[in-house]
Amino acid sequence: MTSASLDHYFDSFRTQFVLPSGLIYLDGNSLGVLPKASSVAVQRAVEHEWGQDLIRSWNTADWINAPERCGDKIAKLIGANEGEVVACDSTSVNLFKVLVSALKLAEHDPSRNVIVSDIDNFPTDLYIAQGLRELLTSRSLELRFVKHDEVADAIDAKTAVVMLTEVDYRTGERYDMRVMTAHAQANGAMMIWDLAHSAGAFSVELNACNADFAVGCGYKYLNGGPGAPAFVFAANRHLQALDAINAPAPISGWFAHAAPFAFESEFRVTRGAKRFLVGTPPILQFAAFEASLDIWLTVDMGKIREQSLVLTDLFIREVEARCGSTRSPQAELTLATPRAHHARGSQVSFRHSEGYAIMQALIARNVIGDFRAPDILRFGFTPLYVTKQDVVAAATHLENILATCEWDQPKFKQKQAVT
Amino acid sequence: MTSASLDHYFDSFRTQFVLPSGLIYLDGNSLGVLPKASSVAVQRAVEHEWGQDLIRSWNTADWINAPERCGDKIAKLIGANEGEVVACDSTSVNLFKVLVSALKLAEHDPSRNVIVSDIDNFPTDLYIAQGLRELLTSRSLELRFVKHDEVADAIDAKTAVVMLTEVDYRTGERYDMRVMTAHAQANGAMMIWDLAHSAGAFSVELNACNADFAVGCGYKYLNGGPGAPAFVFAANRHLQALDAINAPAPISGWFAHAAPFAFESEFRVTRGAKRFLVGTPPILQFAAFEASLDIWLTVDMGKIREQSLVLTDLFIREVEARCGSTRSPQAELTLATPRAHHARGSQVSFRHSEGYAIMQALIARNVIGDFRAPDILRFGFTPLYVTKQDVVAAATHLENILATCEWDQPKFKQKQAVT
Repeated sequence: MTSASLDHYFDSFRTQFVLPSGLIYLDGNSLGVLPKASSVAVQRAVEHEWGQDLIRSWNTADWINAPERCGDKIAKLIGANEGEVVACDSTSVNLFKVLVSALKLAEHDPSRNVIVSDIDNFPTDLYIAQGLRELLTSRSLELRFVKHDEVADAIDAKTAVVMLTEVDYRTGERYDMRVMTAHAQANGAMMIWDLAHSAGAFSVELNACNADFAVGCGYKYLNGGPGAPAFVFAANRHLQALDAINAPAPISGWFAHAAPFAFESEFRVTRGAKRFLVGTPPILQFAAFEASLDIWLTVDMGKIREQSLVLTDLFIREVEARCGSTRSPQAELTLATPRAHHARGSQVSFRHSEGYAIMQALIARNVIGDFRAPDILRFGFTPLYVTKQDVVAAATHLENILATCEWDQPKFKQKQAVT
Repeated sequence: MTSASLDHYFDSFRTQFVLPSGLIYLDGNSLGVLPKASSVAVQRAVEHEWGQDLIRSWNTADWINAPERCGDKIAKLIGANEGEVVACDSTSVNLFKVLVSALKLAEHDPSRNVIVSDIDNFPTDLYIAQGLRELLTSRSLELRFVKHDEVADAIDAKTAVVMLTEVDYRTGERYDMRVMTAHAQANGAMMIWDLAHSAGAFSVELNACNADFAVGCGYKYLNGGPGAPAFVFAANRHLQALDAINAPAPISGWFAHAAPFAFESEFRVTRGAKRFLVGTPPILQFAAFEASLDIWLTVDMGKIREQSLVLTDLFIREVEARCGSTRSPQAELTLATPRAHHARGSQVSFRHSEGYAIMQALIARNVIGDFRAPDILRFGFTPLYVTKQDVVAAATHLENILATCEWDQPKFKQKQAVT
């Protein structure tokens, strides 16, 4: 597709989002922008469904099936089948559930007690595994968290589970899902993918890569709104295996019961992916999220990736030309993201020892990215609403901030609660 | 206070809620009505905070502290201190967390491996305990679920935790929190209260009763909206004890980390009630919930109880006069709720073998209660927006439906997904 026709393709999506005037928003990998349809959907959910229909909306507005319904919509974006995905809880809680489930399926071989991950994985993933080690004392879990390049070698006959985030939240470096999944499975381990920076960033092919389990986030590229429900994927073969051994739900709340409204006193686990549900779903968040998913279902994910690479290549080129190695050290940004297309997602990160202050100065100029300790300036590129003009303008602002040391002011160095 | 002045007191609250025209809503114990302020707050959160300020709202709108801020507001309604309550996740997930925490504190005595509960407890509470028994195999947990009247005797030197819902979701029968807590503790056990049908129904006095842990629901009497965040209470002495032994968080997500935005790879648990947080909070639900809590903070809980008893007494009297034992068996409703004030919450339940169809017929007349298997017609009374006129009108509708067997139609017998 030509560059102009790609731009034209995305123009029709851009109008479907609320884009604050004068703002260049390169943080859709942290919180996606507001779809206009989500605003309408939330208002309807509040005023009409809650306000007027009240408790009846569980049936009349089909609130009760929101987790499965949204799960099936997400499935189409991540290469999963109907019935393999539910939307619920937070990514952290969901990772807890899939780890418990994968360990359950692995427990026939007690010698496999190792969870392998990348030490630079998003911390909550590591924390959840650390917590499980403390909780499941009888499993004597061992955690093997190693550098990106050492992950493959760390997988061996003692490995129960490999748990990776496909795209590194700091550098944007991307694992090869197909290769790593095959490698884990060749060693007899289960492969869990965290799709936080994948879903909505490019076409994910969970089943084509034979992934075992996955979790992901609703509020980043998927534009589901702040604190949107996260999601869980389990390959159908594992759902069937869990059903076959009548495995308990990982957190056995009433929404994982075979008949929640029969109010039985004995837990009977439901079939399929609903085993990952726990309690009452957050309906207002679902209203926002589902409206965004309905936009996503009209998007050509191949074009998303094509335009994402156009935008990220352009940003790398523009920033390196303006703030590259020919400048003084203080005005220099170092690319942290791999250049090769296959080795990255839809974000570009640069390093600078004063990254925090530089990002604050940039935000003060209405260009929003974010900072990740210790030295990463992080920029997310979301073709649905970010243009080439935005990219060039952002690079220009960066150049000016660096050239004049505009960032070197106390107000930009003061740390905020959330960075 | 005189009856008229009580009515007058609540008139000023009634106007703060959206009350659908022609509807008599006696289901605020399942989903509270929409506060007008919540509607405004959600719209602001969507349009302004998400739509315009985007990621910056974590700081500028203080999204990041919503769980603690709302927790502190809830604390005032349930007799807890600042810092002892956080709002988060669902009641089911929160019960999982407090059970894990209570068991952690009890583990110095391995002979205590029994969880005692009421077999008629809300099923998800029982399910969560059943799931934990499967998960924590090394603890060899034994579950002792007995009838209401047998709970006290079931508590013994092997009991680690007693877990009860203060007000029975079906019958409305209420435990004596003070007596049962003291009895559990006299036997060396931890006492966990589920306040699903207590918070907002009457003044709860957790600390005055020396409760150990509690969980509760945001979307019932507290009017927090469908799928509102639930809450967790832990007595300060236990928070300190957990801190002292550096107990891991029950589900150790990044929001339970001492410095979540330092992105450290090693989990370091935070101090205090924030140890019960896990992942990113659902901000739109918090916007709705907090606006409702701000109304609650202006309510005199003593007057809530006084009017609740006026309304429930009136309903019992009216229904028994119209559908009592002088009628034909088919037209007769049997009170399932204790008459004694101290022995009930803010709901009244009647039994009838055709309860489901009768409730559907009542709903068709725009009087909303709900049905709980096998035979319970359940009515919640919420003084903030239910009047004596509503109560009498509801009883009149019930009388008519029963007298003419209006319920005896196929359309009223067809079961819906959610009852």
